[in-house]
Amino acid sequence: MHRFFNPQSIAVIGVPARTGDGSFNNVETMVRYGYKGKVYPVNPKATEIYGRKAYPSVLDIPETADLAIISVGRDRVFPLFEECVRTGIKRVVIISQGFADADQRGKELQDQIVNLARENGVRIVGPNTMGLLNNYARFTTGFVDLPVPERFSPVSLIAQTGYIQVASVDHAYRSWGKAVDIGNSCDIHFVDALEYFADDPETKVIAVHMEGMKRGAKFLEIASKVTVKKPIVVLKTGRTGAGAKAALSHTGSLVGEDSVFDAAFDRTGIIRVRDTADWRLAIKALICFDEMAGPRVGIVTVTGAGGIMAIDACERQGLALAELPAGLSETLREGMPEWIHVGNPIDIWPIGMIGGDYPGAVGRALTGLLQSPDVDGAVLIIPAMNSPLHQNMADLSPVVAEARRKTGNRKPVAAFLYADEHKEFPDRYEALDGVASFDSPEECVRGLAVAYKNYQGRNRRGRSPKQYPIDTTAVETLAGEGRREGALLGDSAFLLLEVFGIPCVKSRYSGGTWDELEQAAAGLAWPVVLKLAGSPFLHKSEWGGVITGIRDIDALKAAWETMTQSVRRRDPSVKIETFQLQEQASGKELLLGLKWDPQFGHVIACGMGGIYTEVYRDISRAIVPIDGIDAETMLRELTMFPILTGVRGEKAVDMESLVDILERLSFLAATIPDLSELDVNPLIVSDQGCRAVDARILW
Amino acid sequence: MHRFFNPQSIAVIGVPARTGDGSFNNVETMVRYGYKGKVYPVNPKATEIYGRKAYPSVLDIPETADLAIISVGRDRVFPLFEECVRTGIKRVVIISQGFADADQRGKELQDQIVNLARENGVRIVGPNTMGLLNNYARFTTGFVDLPVPERFSPVSLIAQTGYIQVASVDHAYRSWGKAVDIGNSCDIHFVDALEYFADDPETKVIAVHMEGMKRGAKFLEIASKVTVKKPIVVLKTGRTGAGAKAALSHTGSLVGEDSVFDAAFDRTGIIRVRDTADWRLAIKALICFDEMAGPRVGIVTVTGAGGIMAIDACERQGLALAELPAGLSETLREGMPEWIHVGNPIDIWPIGMIGGDYPGAVGRALTGLLQSPDVDGAVLIIPAMNSPLHQNMADLSPVVAEARRKTGNRKPVAAFLYADEHKEFPDRYEALDGVASFDSPEECVRGLAVAYKNYQGRNRRGRSPKQYPIDTTAVETLAGEGRREGALLGDSAFLLLEVFGIPCVKSRYSGGTWDELEQAAAGLAWPVVLKLAGSPFLHKSEWGGVITGIRDIDALKAAWETMTQSVRRRDPSVKIETFQLQEQASGKELLLGLKWDPQFGHVIACGMGGIYTEVYRDISRAIVPIDGIDAETMLRELTMFPILTGVRGEKAVDMESLVDILERLSFLAATIPDLSELDVNPLIVSDQGCRAVDARILW
Repeated sequence: MHRFFNPQSIAVIGVPARTGDGSFNNVETMVRYGYKGKVYPVNPKATEIYGRKAYPSVLDIPETADLAIISVGRDRVFPLFEECVRTGIKRVVIISQGFADADQRGKELQDQIVNLARENGVRIVGPNTMGLLNNYARFTTGFVDLPVPERFSPVSLIAQTGYIQVASVDHAYRSWGKAVDIGNSCDIHFVDALEYFADDPETKVIAVHMEGMKRGAKFLEIASKVTVKKPIVVLKTGRTGAGAKAALSHTGSLVGEDSVFDAAFDRTGIIRVRDTADWRLAIKALICFDEMAGPRVGIVTVTGAGGIMAIDACERQGLALAELPAGLSETLREGMPEWIHVGNPIDIWPIGMIGGDYPGAVGRALTGLLQSPDVDGAVLIIPAMNSPLHQNMADLSPVVAEARRKTGNRKPVAAFLYADEHKEFPDRYEALDGVASFDSPEECVRGLAVAYKNYQGRNRRGRSPKQYPIDTTAVETLAGEGRREGALLGDSAFLLLEVFGIPCVKSRYSGGTWDELEQAAAGLAWPVVLKLAGSPFLHKSEWGGVITGIRDIDALKAAWETMTQSVRRRDPSVKIETFQLQEQASGKELLLGLKWDPQFGHVIACGMGGIYTEVYRDISRAIVPIDGIDAETMLRELTMFPILTGVRGEKAVDMESLVDILERLSFLAATIPDLSELDVNPLIVSDQGCRAVDARILW
Repeated sequence: MHRFFNPQSIAVIGVPARTGDGSFNNVETMVRYGYKGKVYPVNPKATEIYGRKAYPSVLDIPETADLAIISVGRDRVFPLFEECVRTGIKRVVIISQGFADADQRGKELQDQIVNLARENGVRIVGPNTMGLLNNYARFTTGFVDLPVPERFSPVSLIAQTGYIQVASVDHAYRSWGKAVDIGNSCDIHFVDALEYFADDPETKVIAVHMEGMKRGAKFLEIASKVTVKKPIVVLKTGRTGAGAKAALSHTGSLVGEDSVFDAAFDRTGIIRVRDTADWRLAIKALICFDEMAGPRVGIVTVTGAGGIMAIDACERQGLALAELPAGLSETLREGMPEWIHVGNPIDIWPIGMIGGDYPGAVGRALTGLLQSPDVDGAVLIIPAMNSPLHQNMADLSPVVAEARRKTGNRKPVAAFLYADEHKEFPDRYEALDGVASFDSPEECVRGLAVAYKNYQGRNRRGRSPKQYPIDTTAVETLAGEGRREGALLGDSAFLLLEVFGIPCVKSRYSGGTWDELEQAAAGLAWPVVLKLAGSPFLHKSEWGGVITGIRDIDALKAAWETMTQSVRRRDPSVKIETFQLQEQASGKELLLGLKWDPQFGHVIACGMGGIYTEVYRDISRAIVPIDGIDAETMLRELTMFPILTGVRGEKAVDMESLVDILERLSFLAATIPDLSELDVNPLIVSDQGCRAVDARILW
């Protein structure tokens, strides 16, 4: 990848002969941008392009170029790519559209190219890409005349589009240091780019624009290692169903259910943002701030109203208001009238005005906050006026610098410099270590929240999923049956769960007649539950197919009659072949599940069970494998968590056993990698333990 | 209020003698801002201030000024205010801090001023205020040297702070037309300002910054009328508990539970925003756009990735992707290769490039969208480059103007003009009717969502709460009892509910002995529920105080024994005086409630009932009175709504009766205005109707 970003010589294949307005001439844009290496235009219809000798074919250029760029109609790409391979070129950017992004024919053309590349060890960026940008080397492969940025940040961008390179003024902080548009990512992919930027000394922050993901598990594995060293901030788009559909036609990549991405990023330390505005803000915070080592925010503000806005934002962002450091109130109130209060936020305006030393008051307040061990970061809300009448209210960056110097730490300071008409002041503050300016009180807090997330991501614990001794022969037998049948339902599913130590209720199956049912009941303790079983009755409750609380044999007979009639009424052609009789467990209803995700592998889920699962959607998810702490986190994330710990005098459920079951389920998924779906619904949990009451497993 | 914003003469009391840097001299800032009326500085220690004759007292100035501004230490305000009253001045801005915003002494000083003002028909803005701003008259009362804005919008601001006037470059679109900081609002209040701006021809949009609210019901009543004519967009801060606490010390106003504000704004047409960034965006959208008459968005984009971002935002904002207008795909694909797809978003880049007429392609696409009856508004995502190599990609505002002209409507067009380094282009687009530029694809969509909300708010139906014939004597008797006792519990509460036609389950009370209980059971049908009653047992379930499903007299005896023991175990000193026996209703558990809110009056609530109410918090709220459609809306807003309509083959509950009960409860609140709290929990609802199972009513 390094050579992709720093080529010494480039063949530009398909470059137009024409230059100037409307020509989209790559050689012109590249040279105007300041690229200093050798450029070989390839165009059989020209002898010279933008002052450089043009070659009829890549075969004619006098050296083996480090990089070729191909930009022609899709049907002409393959033969030209083949010529590149023949000359020994090892890196190609294919700009042309119309491949997997377009239709089946495009997909085939793309595969043809990929096969040839693989056979010859050639790496490709694209197709359907704007390619590469490297501001350290003044290098761009784009056909758009980008302005050379005055300043850029050590942020490297991996995107599934070129527009974010073009729109750097809109989306980057200053400008991107490096950027790659992976386009259809037929070869060079998120994973390759991530690996390169991970060790790239010119990259401090990695920004990712992602529409979909193909090698998800590998991406997570690498990301998990990278975030310990440098932050990764991901804008995942195509969140919704409609967006996902458009993404498919845009880059031909797979787009997953959005919550799976959340689960996937969750414990890798990746910072996920909601939209482009948040992305930009997060990037700025990650460049300007070190990590913030805790959630406690101190606020110095000239406006009480702005302080309240910051408080609102703290609550939303999960940050806390710091306790006012001991003694700070006394220091600030010295010589003030008695009605002056000092709290956090510190309303510095009356203190500055009455005391006649506004900058001094701000300095004392900020220093007091930064030096306190109970404050992790600060928000500063002050005007930055350029009136000759308010020279004291113009530039307090020296005051901030002094507070920084005195306290000797790098706790983040997020400043909202309001009334700064011409944005004259942010640079002076941002020249200081750990200081950034934002556009509102709320954005200051969001900036700090990013710094705190970065800290949490960097300092997260490692996972240690448990292994369990299991009867591997039994697993093979049952999984084999599942593979053959496509599914394990009811008792067979229970058998597999029990092999993995997941407890299930005792149950019996019987035929549809009363005699058979009566016989089955003999082995069970009352009360029992009667259920319809068998393939016509996947959604039992729609058939009136569950009757609970059956206390004796007479009640069972009544239930049998009711259920038989109910099925007959709904569909006389359906015959009941099998009943299931279960001992009745009582407690809270949970749901446990596994689902194979093509991008990230098995996803484990738990949440509110029963027939209202889909109404409340109170489900938490994680990528397999999980350990005990992951399992506990999943449970804590549920809205219903307080119900598990006991509300209004109820007993807490057996949490230890619940966590154990989640870990065992994760181990099950890891042991049977081809399992596509597993549902335990409900799992009945109480203070007496947990028991699966119904289960189905699909292959 | 008009004269407050347009005074012809002003006495500036307490203005410093000094001018220049750091003096905060009101006369200087007012004159520099361009105020053309007469200014009378009042300062006994000066003879001339900023070139104007100074007067020792307001009593000495040669006319009765239209307005006085007082800015001195809090203890000196009252005597100076009294002098103003004596001279016949009718409008006073009190800038000084330290009143109800500070402490009890300040509150008393403020009350003293207010009393004198009321007696003499004098109106006050403040105290603790920056006062008024009117850019139409180049008038400010502020002591800060504000830059005169090059441009301002017809947006009038009502705020509980002055900082938003100072920070107009940060929070306004262009600048505020007029603004008032109501400060502690001891007299002039949201309601007064709102009434003025409602009829002010210089006001097109009303922006409100609100921390708390005193005359909430009146505010809602007026707002409800105003929003039919012009939009009101509210930034309500102090959303959270912590924020609310700070608000109290800042403006001495009451801050309510945040969800009550949502309920209050909900059906008045007020547009509520989340933070200052959203506020600014909404204000811009309301200035630039007419209403958007439906939710259907068409998107023209040069970047597929940007289109996906816009789709994500549509989903979040509750807007829909429009169907592509018939024939538009064919028009755009003319002469294109077969792999070019046209959908919505319309990816215009390949069409523009291959066809060689990019501006023409954008024009055809946008025209096609705007002229379709199936599209309500458009998003345009295009670069705005100032390179000599891309003159066609610089300014498409003439193309947009042409589309506007051709289609002859004012459907909103939200443009994201990316790569526009120096923000050269937005003004050209915003000069067009119904066109605004935003900073990202997502913000374009948010702008359209605001325009759609404005439409919905303007065209909402009127309310028609029902009146019911009731036995007013019975109401008086029961309410009288409630007032005396402070509460009606159990049966007494049921009696009141039944007067209003709200059905309750049949129940009997008995003493604590078995004999009494047995006797009470005689009048009821099995199954029954046994409950503890009386004041020690407000949270019954914590006492083991509810046993359900009692099918016969033997089971009742067993239940009685269990419950008696359970109470004895928990607290042997508590004696059971009363049991309640109820016929058991079966169905879903809902909660109904009323709560008196000091700002807005009675709030009606309904949602998930039972003991998990506080865990799921699935509650919707509205301000009393409500009508049937409001009631239905409240139910539809619940997460559990599908459970009421029946999931998985369950029967729907009797929705008609549920709506009726909500309307009756609203009527009850309107009839008994001093009722402070009412809970029906649970209300059991089924296809057979609804019945209150437990209730308490507090005064």
